[in-house]
Amino acid sequence: QIAQDVLGFGGSIPVVASLAEGLTRRPNALLIGIAPPGGQLPPSWRALILDAIDHRLEIWSGLHTILGDDPEFAARARAVGVAIHDLRKPPSDIDVARGRVREIDDRATVILTVGTDCNIGKMTTQLQLRDAMRARGMRVGFAPTGQTGILVEGWGISVDAVIADFIAGAAERLTLHAAKDADIVLVEGQGSIIHPSYSGVTYGLLHGSLPHAMVMCAQPSRTAINNHPWVKIPPLAEFIDMQERAAAPLRPAPVIAVALNTYDLSDADARVAIERVRRETDLPATDPVRFDPAPIVDAIDAFHRRRFGTGARSAATGAAAS
Amino acid sequence: QIAQDVLGFGGSIPVVASLAEGLTRRPNALLIGIAPPGGQLPPSWRALILDAIDHRLEIWSGLHTILGDDPEFAARARAVGVAIHDLRKPPSDIDVARGRVREIDDRATVILTVGTDCNIGKMTTQLQLRDAMRARGMRVGFAPTGQTGILVEGWGISVDAVIADFIAGAAERLTLHAAKDADIVLVEGQGSIIHPSYSGVTYGLLHGSLPHAMVMCAQPSRTAINNHPWVKIPPLAEFIDMQERAAAPLRPAPVIAVALNTYDLSDADARVAIERVRRETDLPATDPVRFDPAPIVDAIDAFHRRRFGTGARSAATGAAAS
Repeated sequence: QIAQDVLGFGGSIPVVASLAEGLTRRPNALLIGIAPPGGQLPPSWRALILDAIDHRLEIWSGLHTILGDDPEFAARARAVGVAIHDLRKPPSDIDVARGRVREIDDRATVILTVGTDCNIGKMTTQLQLRDAMRARGMRVGFAPTGQTGILVEGWGISVDAVIADFIAGAAERLTLHAAKDADIVLVEGQGSIIHPSYSGVTYGLLHGSLPHAMVMCAQPSRTAINNHPWVKIPPLAEFIDMQERAAAPLRPAPVIAVALNTYDLSDADARVAIERVRRETDLPATDPVRFDPAPIVDAIDAFHRRRFGTGARSAATGAAAS
Repeated sequence: QIAQDVLGFGGSIPVVASLAEGLTRRPNALLIGIAPPGGQLPPSWRALILDAIDHRLEIWSGLHTILGDDPEFAARARAVGVAIHDLRKPPSDIDVARGRVREIDDRATVILTVGTDCNIGKMTTQLQLRDAMRARGMRVGFAPTGQTGILVEGWGISVDAVIADFIAGAAERLTLHAAKDADIVLVEGQGSIIHPSYSGVTYGLLHGSLPHAMVMCAQPSRTAINNHPWVKIPPLAEFIDMQERAAAPLRPAPVIAVALNTYDLSDADARVAIERVRRETDLPATDPVRFDPAPIVDAIDAFHRRRFGTGARSAATGAAAS
């Protein structure tokens, strides 16, 4: 089997049923890409991971359990001479947040993706926007805040894995780092302001990254928080108002576009859903994976130009703003 | 010198200038009761702590730095035979929150103290309320969520020291534990929903403890977040509205009383400030340390009786509700 057959995308990436079957493809790493609730290592995975190490596979893990700190894994990896990469292990020197993102206010625009729930498109939207902006010649930076973003980009901090007092501090550090050579900083959002398990991460990230504007990610078919049917998701226009109120006490940040996740809809239904959201929110909206992300890119570019006046440099390298 | 002279309270507790001077009083423990920003151990304290261990003092620490995990401290303490107690070290088996506080909805009322800022009275208010309720014969539990509360009570979890994804889970666990033999559960609040460094902790605690009602803690003279003058504290009635909106998506919880910290005001000015807040918020208000906490206790008792109907058992043991 290949990924294309199972997922509808992914091309010829093989899908295998066991480590033994995978080893016939001569891999050089085992990536633990899914996570059980709470992100702890299920005891039943231990034997498989040890087996992979014995076959000289590097281990890449996005679990909360730090595999490199596990005495058995660490000893075995050392003996065999392979590395264990824990994507969620935070640096040890994160400071508390001090509102330092305000220091780049005079030269960059920070855009945070926010969402009605977890696992709804906050990272994917930013990566689509980043690629589209680069294609336009805009100077754009991306700040990865979770294990998958870190895996894609090669740097970042999983803000849900730092000590609670340092969530905003981690967000501040990531935002400033991503802003080094950028006019537009795209910060990967996490969770939801109404998530019963993870809202603390969401708020710390919001108040540490201090975005100038936000892009709202939603899934038309989702009416309650995943795994928490008792927490209903309010209508999108109301949720956007709640989101703006959540940011406002530190500094006002409007939601300037909506990114819809329509993967479970037909093309026709997706277009209807997007049109309805446009009408209900009076904002640019699209599915930036299924369709062209241009409406969201345009909204961000226009917002950035408004902030710096018509005479300011556009986010496109060297170009004069219109 | 004694504490009474320096602080205006504390009676004959001696105040000393150095470890050497303190040792003449034959102490059995060194308590590290203050914390620098970020809660890390300042390098200059290392020698003093080692000196204390050598004098066979137990170490009690509320720092984020876990002293018992420090190789030098751990080795020295082991050699001398004294214990190191890290009040902020969380248990290793905290689960993510699952809205489980709803399971006690039919028998208990959860009250969370919230505040406009850190260090404003959220713990002290609960301890004053707890004592006043016990004196009335009410069945009341207190859930300590920070290092000082843990030191006072002998149990609890410092929710600002857990891994970010588990803040709400820690709050849920503490709330359920404190509810074991209680009709009223008083949960110690942390931070502020507008705190630029720590709001994530505040929200995780709010959404994990799922209070039925909240008591707002404020200081009349404080107009901005401490150390963050750029974050202004809105007028109290507006802040209360924001606080109720923060709780509402998970479940509505009204602010039912205001606890004012008037330590920097004269008695006369304190009374004026309390009266003004009463008028502005239309809520019972008092300084529960300086004056009788009864107005807040009455508000909680009335709220609890309303939840369970006039026929239900009062929170006072065995008494019939009026």
